[in-house]
Amino acid sequence: IVNSWKLVHSGVVALYEMGRADPRKFVFAVKMGFSLALISLVIFLKEFGSFSQYSIWAILTVIVVFEYNVGATLSKGFNRALGTLSAGGLALGIAELSGGQLHEIVTVTSIFVIGFAASYIKLHPKMKPYEYGFRVFLLTYSIVLISGKKSSTTFFNTAFYRLMLIAVGAFVCLVVNICIFPIWAGEDLHKLVVKNFRGVAKSLEGCVNGYLQCVEYERIPSMILTYQPMDDPLYSGYRAAVQSSSQEDSLVDFAIWEPPHGPYRTLHYPWKNYVKVAGALRHCAFMVMAMHGCILSEIQAPEEKRQVFSNELRKVGAEGGNVLRKLADKLEKMEKLGAVDLLLEVHEAAEALQMKIDEKSYILVSTDRWDPSKKPKPAEDPDHVQQLKDTDNKDFVFTSLSEAVDFGEAPLLQRGMDSRTQSMFRSGFGPPLPHWTSTESVFRKSAMQWPSHMSIHADLGVPDAAVTENECRTYVSASSLSLATFSSLLIEFVARLQYLVDSYQELCTVAGFKEPAAEPAADSKGPAAV
Amino acid sequence: IVNSWKLVHSGVVALYEMGRADPRKFVFAVKMGFSLALISLVIFLKEFGSFSQYSIWAILTVIVVFEYNVGATLSKGFNRALGTLSAGGLALGIAELSGGQLHEIVTVTSIFVIGFAASYIKLHPKMKPYEYGFRVFLLTYSIVLISGKKSSTTFFNTAFYRLMLIAVGAFVCLVVNICIFPIWAGEDLHKLVVKNFRGVAKSLEGCVNGYLQCVEYERIPSMILTYQPMDDPLYSGYRAAVQSSSQEDSLVDFAIWEPPHGPYRTLHYPWKNYVKVAGALRHCAFMVMAMHGCILSEIQAPEEKRQVFSNELRKVGAEGGNVLRKLADKLEKMEKLGAVDLLLEVHEAAEALQMKIDEKSYILVSTDRWDPSKKPKPAEDPDHVQQLKDTDNKDFVFTSLSEAVDFGEAPLLQRGMDSRTQSMFRSGFGPPLPHWTSTESVFRKSAMQWPSHMSIHADLGVPDAAVTENECRTYVSASSLSLATFSSLLIEFVARLQYLVDSYQELCTVAGFKEPAAEPAADSKGPAAV
Repeated sequence: IVNSWKLVHSGVVALYEMGRADPRKFVFAVKMGFSLALISLVIFLKEFGSFSQYSIWAILTVIVVFEYNVGATLSKGFNRALGTLSAGGLALGIAELSGGQLHEIVTVTSIFVIGFAASYIKLHPKMKPYEYGFRVFLLTYSIVLISGKKSSTTFFNTAFYRLMLIAVGAFVCLVVNICIFPIWAGEDLHKLVVKNFRGVAKSLEGCVNGYLQCVEYERIPSMILTYQPMDDPLYSGYRAAVQSSSQEDSLVDFAIWEPPHGPYRTLHYPWKNYVKVAGALRHCAFMVMAMHGCILSEIQAPEEKRQVFSNELRKVGAEGGNVLRKLADKLEKMEKLGAVDLLLEVHEAAEALQMKIDEKSYILVSTDRWDPSKKPKPAEDPDHVQQLKDTDNKDFVFTSLSEAVDFGEAPLLQRGMDSRTQSMFRSGFGPPLPHWTSTESVFRKSAMQWPSHMSIHADLGVPDAAVTENECRTYVSASSLSLATFSSLLIEFVARLQYLVDSYQELCTVAGFKEPAAEPAADSKGPAAV
Repeated sequence: IVNSWKLVHSGVVALYEMGRADPRKFVFAVKMGFSLALISLVIFLKEFGSFSQYSIWAILTVIVVFEYNVGATLSKGFNRALGTLSAGGLALGIAELSGGQLHEIVTVTSIFVIGFAASYIKLHPKMKPYEYGFRVFLLTYSIVLISGKKSSTTFFNTAFYRLMLIAVGAFVCLVVNICIFPIWAGEDLHKLVVKNFRGVAKSLEGCVNGYLQCVEYERIPSMILTYQPMDDPLYSGYRAAVQSSSQEDSLVDFAIWEPPHGPYRTLHYPWKNYVKVAGALRHCAFMVMAMHGCILSEIQAPEEKRQVFSNELRKVGAEGGNVLRKLADKLEKMEKLGAVDLLLEVHEAAEALQMKIDEKSYILVSTDRWDPSKKPKPAEDPDHVQQLKDTDNKDFVFTSLSEAVDFGEAPLLQRGMDSRTQSMFRSGFGPPLPHWTSTESVFRKSAMQWPSHMSIHADLGVPDAAVTENECRTYVSASSLSLATFSSLLIEFVARLQYLVDSYQELCTVAGFKEPAAEPAADSKGPAAV
């Protein structure tokens, strides 16, 4: 009893929390209850007499048509009306034709044919918005035909009363749904897009900062590996933006049914453009996802290499997030971009990052295996320079490799690691690094994750240490490029912002957004600093 | 008339094509028609007499419960039964209590309260699978209470007949749906996952080959930029895998309702594990998506640089696709992986790629801006080596930059390009390349795409040539790293395959897949060679 009481209690708490988080859900439920009570009151008050048996239609209509937002209600109401009317007409026609002895056979056959045709046509992808209409069509057709058995009078009565009560139900639905605290699909869509902008911004900044702080997952949650929802601040932001596409599609399908309202004043409001902006945002979010992949990866660049680009990366990340937040604010207020170039700062930051990369690109590659003869040759006086280079390079390769082994082996042996992991280590990380300590975090991670992999090999009867070792070497030596990849993805993200801004401007134009307030820089920078 | 005839004709053709592509849709429609005909026949044959007015319930149940696959039908049937029974019981209880004068007030109030509670609870995310049950609950409750106005006898009659006819309808539905050519959600899920494996494999190979052939989009379709469906072989493969997550979720919700059937013989078949494998595949598909991003990017590595890694990249792509195809075949046949290590070849290929990158990493970076003092220093005898290096490097930087300008300017001026694009060119592409001709394709592209961007700046009143020029420089000089990014993403893709194989093996174990046939290598290599 205590347990079930606790269950009820937690259920009530969960419901209360839901209502606090989105009071519109509460409003919707009240409206639904109110509509039902209203329709039952109407049925009670008007003593319908003989046709009270049809009162079910009014209730059925309310329950089926009353949807969460206005657009859905209108769309379902339209489907219901269309389905009922066309099916009613067709059924009356068939019934008139099929008088006489064969009546029952004709009825059953026609139900089969119509049932087949309607079910088949509604499976076509283009018919998807009208799926409910087909259902209503079939229902009406069958019921009208079957009830029509008795006589022509009851036949018309059925059709007429049914229609009337459906109209009453639909009327109550529409009035209650539109006139009392309407919930608009378009508004939801607008808010959803704004929310996704902020989510991606948060993910982006989180990814860049996390990357620079060398955030590592002790063990990558399998929820991320199988792309399931998880409460990770970096992950949930871009995932929401990526996953909301189906939600956007259904909202836009409803939004186009809605009459002009609130700030959306034109008759054919360009809801499709909101979806387009959201799509462009998704295109950017994919880059954030790929950057998050760099954090998730087993292949990690050592920390002090990341620190070299720290300022530039952080700046680009911050400015990129800033652009997204500014766009979110503008979209929320439905303002045009104005004269300021939103991308100016982020482009400057990206450029600074690129300059830095150009300057320090030796950090991004491991030079120790360079084939000396393939080094970039200056065209002028190649012999002389090449000579210098060759000496230099051979020397360098030799010393650095031996260095790596000498430095690496001692502390590792002290920690009692096995020979396999040592060889992994020996082969990795091209140029010797100033501080061995920091690379150990990377190494520790590899050591933690590889064994499971190795044991699989062993289980499968391929205990080929050489193969495994090679694999390890492959992944470990890729670490130097990981930083390059991260930076490159970040720059590509910046490049993709351009299209996002373009599509936002298109939206501004077609939706007739207002000019920004006089001092947009001051207040739009506010939230970005938070 | 001709037009409308054409419209009808094309509609018929589209429907015929749909039936040919998936005959099960045709079967479903026939079954639906048959069920309806059957139920109307039952109603005609049994002269129900006084309660023929309730025949509507049987028809309504068939139309509402009859769904495409068995799982959905069972789930809806269960919801319907649960909703009807609990609402009926509650309504009878309330009606008994509320005899007397206040009857109507009590009824309307209770409808309001129940309508509110049911609508509110069903909005909770956890209640989503039972949404239909709540609807039925409300419907039954309202109708039973309202019809109960007259007397206690009709009251119980309503409830009883209603229940009986619903049972008849549900029985017809289930028998027809399960016994005649059943369509299983589980089978659909299985096929969907197999299809996605093949789609990702195709996308992967297409991306790698396309990258090596320097496929360029004349103009990137805005469908891709806004992530909308498009018929591009590279794009549709991974997009399908990424987008199918909601479809998988709904299929798995239905599949768990289905009884053991066909090859899925255990009672609690691990459908969730199929979704998990699909999620791991999605995790891999994101990397393919990022690789496709490299092709879409405005920042493109020059062709001859790509050619350097051509064999290795191609090999990794082919082997990666191979692994996915083999997994698809195994999954289709429901076989275990067997003793062979599926990843052996792709790991070897990835290792070869990594070795090559280590060897030739100077290709991936532009060395001309390297700060000489920051060059990687061998720890042994640093002074001597450094000295050599400094001389070498300064020389090199100087000559290569002047070279680049000398080489670059002449042909470009001949082509009549303006100074802005020249400066773009001058700053890009670090080390001088052996053949200038091939880089022009990259360059031509930049020249083609940037102007639109620049004109936007001009429109907005920021005709700051210096800024634009800097931006161009940023993007163009990033081109060298683009190849590194592509390779790095490919290697990360290979690393992610491990988790995919692990989750496949988990599925094998829990679902009890059979051991592979004696000679799996011969036939599973077949499709990969195609």
